[in-house]
Amino acid sequence: MGDRYLFYKEPVSIESGEGVWLKDKSGKKYLDVYNNVPVVGHCHPRVVSSLSEQASKLNVHSRYISDVVLDYSEKIVSRHSDGLNKLKMACSGTEAVELALRMARVYTEGEGIICSSSTYHGNSYETFRMTIGPFEPEFRRVLYPQSYRPDKKDLSPEELCEFYVQEVKNQIEAFNKDGIKFAGLIFCSIFANEGLPDFPKDYLEKVSKLVREAGGVIILDEVQAGFGRTGTWWGYELSNITPDICVMGKPMGAGLPVSGVVSTTEISDKFHKNWSYFNTTAATPVQAAVASTVIDIIDEEELVDNANKVGAYLKEELIKLKHQYEFIGDVRGPGLFLGLDIVDNKNDKNPDKELAASIVETLKNKYFLISNAGEYRNVLKFRPPLVFDSDHADLLLTALEEVFREIS
Amino acid sequence: MGDRYLFYKEPVSIESGEGVWLKDKSGKKYLDVYNNVPVVGHCHPRVVSSLSEQASKLNVHSRYISDVVLDYSEKIVSRHSDGLNKLKMACSGTEAVELALRMARVYTEGEGIICSSSTYHGNSYETFRMTIGPFEPEFRRVLYPQSYRPDKKDLSPEELCEFYVQEVKNQIEAFNKDGIKFAGLIFCSIFANEGLPDFPKDYLEKVSKLVREAGGVIILDEVQAGFGRTGTWWGYELSNITPDICVMGKPMGAGLPVSGVVSTTEISDKFHKNWSYFNTTAATPVQAAVASTVIDIIDEEELVDNANKVGAYLKEELIKLKHQYEFIGDVRGPGLFLGLDIVDNKNDKNPDKELAASIVETLKNKYFLISNAGEYRNVLKFRPPLVFDSDHADLLLTALEEVFREIS
Repeated sequence: MGDRYLFYKEPVSIESGEGVWLKDKSGKKYLDVYNNVPVVGHCHPRVVSSLSEQASKLNVHSRYISDVVLDYSEKIVSRHSDGLNKLKMACSGTEAVELALRMARVYTEGEGIICSSSTYHGNSYETFRMTIGPFEPEFRRVLYPQSYRPDKKDLSPEELCEFYVQEVKNQIEAFNKDGIKFAGLIFCSIFANEGLPDFPKDYLEKVSKLVREAGGVIILDEVQAGFGRTGTWWGYELSNITPDICVMGKPMGAGLPVSGVVSTTEISDKFHKNWSYFNTTAATPVQAAVASTVIDIIDEEELVDNANKVGAYLKEELIKLKHQYEFIGDVRGPGLFLGLDIVDNKNDKNPDKELAASIVETLKNKYFLISNAGEYRNVLKFRPPLVFDSDHADLLLTALEEVFREIS
Repeated sequence: MGDRYLFYKEPVSIESGEGVWLKDKSGKKYLDVYNNVPVVGHCHPRVVSSLSEQASKLNVHSRYISDVVLDYSEKIVSRHSDGLNKLKMACSGTEAVELALRMARVYTEGEGIICSSSTYHGNSYETFRMTIGPFEPEFRRVLYPQSYRPDKKDLSPEELCEFYVQEVKNQIEAFNKDGIKFAGLIFCSIFANEGLPDFPKDYLEKVSKLVREAGGVIILDEVQAGFGRTGTWWGYELSNITPDICVMGKPMGAGLPVSGVVSTTEISDKFHKNWSYFNTTAATPVQAAVASTVIDIIDEEELVDNANKVGAYLKEELIKLKHQYEFIGDVRGPGLFLGLDIVDNKNDKNPDKELAASIVETLKNKYFLISNAGEYRNVLKFRPPLVFDSDHADLLLTALEEVFREIS
């Protein structure tokens, strides 16, 4: 393989998986506290049987009509808030974000897109314009909202919210000034790559109002947040808003490459009048069958509820650890998507990326898989399959305590 | 579903598939003379068992080491010409083309890409720049080579070849003049979307020499041509050349979304020094296991040889039909990828898109699935799964004769 983009200084060589466990070639078992794609657990038997059953019956592109695909479309739309009625399918998060941008632009007849200053939405040329640029003229970045390490000091929570909302207002005005028609704004609904910041509860609502008044649409990227991880079906529910376009990915097919975009009927209709989208290996019966089974499992095994309960327990215990250790600055995140902000000390709050990376490596040597993420890559990221229960949480907590004791 | 991009005025609703057959909801069987993704036939039992076996064992991203993925990498590279040693995997043809462009640009430190004037390489923003633009400044198009409807009349074959080579030379010079560093050229190895033109045997060799002398790299897109369809493993073998970067897709996973790029070690090494590529749902053990099985089946069922033999037989019979009907201008294409150029009459050679489309629709009503493609969408496209045998060819020929008699 050409690609050397591996985790860990000494990479792990994984051979099999089951539930929240991954096993290496020597038979050693790792607790997976990292992977969100196998949302229903590694190698779920129902996912496997749905995959093989549909693959032995039919697997073609979407230029013929397939009931399996139509049924899935209805099912996934029913899991979303009212107003999000139309599904389009793709293979990866990148492809779905590309499609979402295109839909926003065709619908608004604009080009200007606002994104967060520390985001990641994919690896294509256009999506990389939101991470490495070139940003201008069509992309403009705003500071993402955060209360732990606010970009402006000594403000009340309300003032801080206004400060971040003003960021968006400024960029809309910058587009106007430069004669670039504004198309919309794209955010991860929980700012996962930014480091899962706590942010004012009504921030996204205020931003949505602003964007829509300016003629733009709200795109929320649920590739990491979606499918129950946040203790709600979608991250956007935590902010009590509904986007105009919602991007789904990673857990959607439990490892089968499949992604999707849901939107309002109005956006979808205008898109289809002016554009056409076709993707040879997307919207196939196999993708639809497996993705449908993923929804069934989430429902029947009550994984949204589990994310809520186990997440709350884990967070509570992590907060206790925070009080004991000077290098744990903050504990954040919803459901089973938690972050520990590792700092040099609680006063300065300076991000300590090296310490975070070394904790990740040490935990790996104790057979626990996590990672470090966030704007400064100093945030320990806990994002296990949603079949993670409180016993698994206890195993993790014990290991964390050991590591923290060793380094303090 | 939001997507209405369906085949046929009255779309077909397909429920199951086996070998070269697709069955609709009423139980009617269609002969599939169109689909190249199920290269080994629809729902091949070995593909299904490989899929379910690996999915029940492990399916994760490529940030851990996986022997299944490493083994596949060696296997696919061994099917390519010497010099193409490194594999990177993605999910769709679009993603693989995006990656190939990035590799060419990182390697050459240039930006300028030459493509054909009537091509399609994907549905992302960057790949659409080769179909709908904006072309300039980084993309420049050249007339694709063709001998049936040449862009300049009354030239000898050698002069015509030079004329088309000069097209490439002109664009390289245009890049130089505009101060855009040249990165390379991307073509489909058999110009499938252009309409499978016959072109001078040494055209691609001459172009490759020119491009490399100018410091660029040759990218060949084998998404449609590859995996035995042309009666050779790769379309590029027909022109006796080896690209620097080769893009693979559609048949690679027999319906599982998987695509890939193979390149020289030199290009891969420089790419990895300056860039990193990661794709969550690509280079997974399931993709590798299934793609590996596809290679095994192609080898063991001798499908390359079959494409050669059955393709030659079908082409011979189509040429006989050409002599009988005024509206068949030309019969073209290698292996089991054949095109009938439908014209108003043999003298003028004016493309008759409407007649081609109506033949496609009439054949569908007789339970044969083909399509119309090419620059003018007047070329009947025959591109069946490679398990298509001479009996299937006879069924198709009988149906074609019926339709041709009816309309003449």
